[in-house]
Amino acid sequence: MSTNRMIDMAAAARLLTEARHIVFLTHANPDGDTLGCAFALAQALAEGRHVQVLCPDTIGESYHFMGAGLPEEPIPAGSAPFVVAVDVADICLLGDLRQVYENKIDLCIDHHGSNRLFAKHTLLEPEAAATAELVYRLLLELGADITHRIADCLFAGISIDTGCFRYANTTAQSHRIAAELIGLGARAAELNQIFFETKTRSYIALEHLAMDSLRFYFDGLCALIWITQEMYQQSGSHEAETDHIASRPRQIEGVFVGATLKERPDGSFRASLRTRTPLDAAAICGRLGGGGHVRAAGCTIKKPRPEAEAVLLEAIRAELESARLVGAE
Amino acid sequence: MSTNRMIDMAAAARLLTEARHIVFLTHANPDGDTLGCAFALAQALAEGRHVQVLCPDTIGESYHFMGAGLPEEPIPAGSAPFVVAVDVADICLLGDLRQVYENKIDLCIDHHGSNRLFAKHTLLEPEAAATAELVYRLLLELGADITHRIADCLFAGISIDTGCFRYANTTAQSHRIAAELIGLGARAAELNQIFFETKTRSYIALEHLAMDSLRFYFDGLCALIWITQEMYQQSGSHEAETDHIASRPRQIEGVFVGATLKERPDGSFRASLRTRTPLDAAAICGRLGGGGHVRAAGCTIKKPRPEAEAVLLEAIRAELESARLVGAE
Repeated sequence: MSTNRMIDMAAAARLLTEARHIVFLTHANPDGDTLGCAFALAQALAEGRHVQVLCPDTIGESYHFMGAGLPEEPIPAGSAPFVVAVDVADICLLGDLRQVYENKIDLCIDHHGSNRLFAKHTLLEPEAAATAELVYRLLLELGADITHRIADCLFAGISIDTGCFRYANTTAQSHRIAAELIGLGARAAELNQIFFETKTRSYIALEHLAMDSLRFYFDGLCALIWITQEMYQQSGSHEAETDHIASRPRQIEGVFVGATLKERPDGSFRASLRTRTPLDAAAICGRLGGGGHVRAAGCTIKKPRPEAEAVLLEAIRAELESARLVGAE
Repeated sequence: MSTNRMIDMAAAARLLTEARHIVFLTHANPDGDTLGCAFALAQALAEGRHVQVLCPDTIGESYHFMGAGLPEEPIPAGSAPFVVAVDVADICLLGDLRQVYENKIDLCIDHHGSNRLFAKHTLLEPEAAATAELVYRLLLELGADITHRIADCLFAGISIDTGCFRYANTTAQSHRIAAELIGLGARAAELNQIFFETKTRSYIALEHLAMDSLRFYFDGLCALIWITQEMYQQSGSHEAETDHIASRPRQIEGVFVGATLKERPDGSFRASLRTRTPLDAAAICGRLGGGGHVRAAGCTIKKPRPEAEAVLLEAIRAELESARLVGAE
């Protein structure tokens, strides 16, 4: 990985200004940051260009507002579009889009310290809480007209990635840009209500069932909950609703690692880890072939339930030991 | 109530500058805003003055950092101190301090639109999400040195009163001041972790019991939960831990009013109401002798359990009708 792939804001702005046809790619299981960035850029650059947002998965209903008003003309056949991946740390996160776009990504705009530098050019700022913070500054650099809708897209990105300004990644820049976006017309209250203050009845039922399974390990340093296929059936909920639930075990006092084991239809398990300083969630999941951020990461464990738990607890124990929170055996 | 009691930031700064002995009063059941403002002002004005913070109730452990380093000299006997009430909307919210300070409040600094103008002078800004926003600008007006600790106090005030920038009262100013406070050294991540991301095991247990009692009324427009004395005993929790629980019923989709009925040791009930636009929580509680903000309010109902519920649901029905969310009978 050569460092000359890294470019600055001004260079990224030049590349985008020169492009006539631009495809924006989001990561799989799209969240408010990847979608907010892709649609903000598409909205800002649509004038006089062909722009297209491609997402490898279905876009949740609460994000549909982001694409409103975008011209729906596809990139002309035969033209070689400029391809931009936003908030994508690794080519494998492109899901089904990977086979088409592998080795064809011209620019990646991202804030993940773990970015694999898979693109020709990368604009990377690991200190940013959200890629939306970079995109906001990039739009200023481009002299773009930041409309209400663009402000909404970027506010959604920052708000989602900071857990509504609650997580440790939130900086003065996050708040400053949020203030400017609200000044530009971002509907902060409505968006936060939708993203953080509205839970379906089925979610409430699923959370209640999941919290019934709460157990503590390593003298309370670890809290673990289960979400089984049976719980989805009982509650009428589904995996897309489990993000908030996964943050609950870590909230309990004394807990340094909160783990959620979600059963997949095929019987394997998706582990979602949330940690507190000094514990590294990405390191725990890295031991099991997964990855992510230092405070939030995930991995897949293809084992039946008791073994899945044992394997995960072993990886957690190893990191608790290396952080000296428990003594080595 | 004469409007000449209202003063502006510059006049408030002059009054504080001239005072030699200042007592800061917080409201009862003190939260991060009233305490953060009182201690921020005391810390900033301690040099060359006698300052004292008085709180009618016990100050929670998570707020103890606010007073660290403050000189503990009482106001000299015989001197007539300048008395400042912060974040206090009504003299009756001063609890046991009322009998000493009634008619002796020189200055009230507040953001409640419902402020009763009980002080000689009032600096009031109902648009501010937190009184801490006013106090921050007041300290700038005073040319005060805003230390790390003062930044922490004011950040706590804004964060607590906006539900960590999530509630509808959050404005561009809230974010802009938060950004500046972080720049001045406020430990945003640590404070948010303590206030929003740390729940005791007893809280988790109590919430689980309370959510077991969840019931819906008026076709799902209202969700109601109970917290009984028995639940406190079962969970090991207590009333001071119930604030977050009270916000849960409103989070459920379709719910315009979330109600929590908390049993007091004497068998009476404290109702905590949370509403969504267009429903007025203060109006509902006003019907039962209580009050508060438009989205969060409370009242006390001195009736046994079935009657308490009936009375509360009747007040809710009346407001649902006047907001035309349900038809009048």
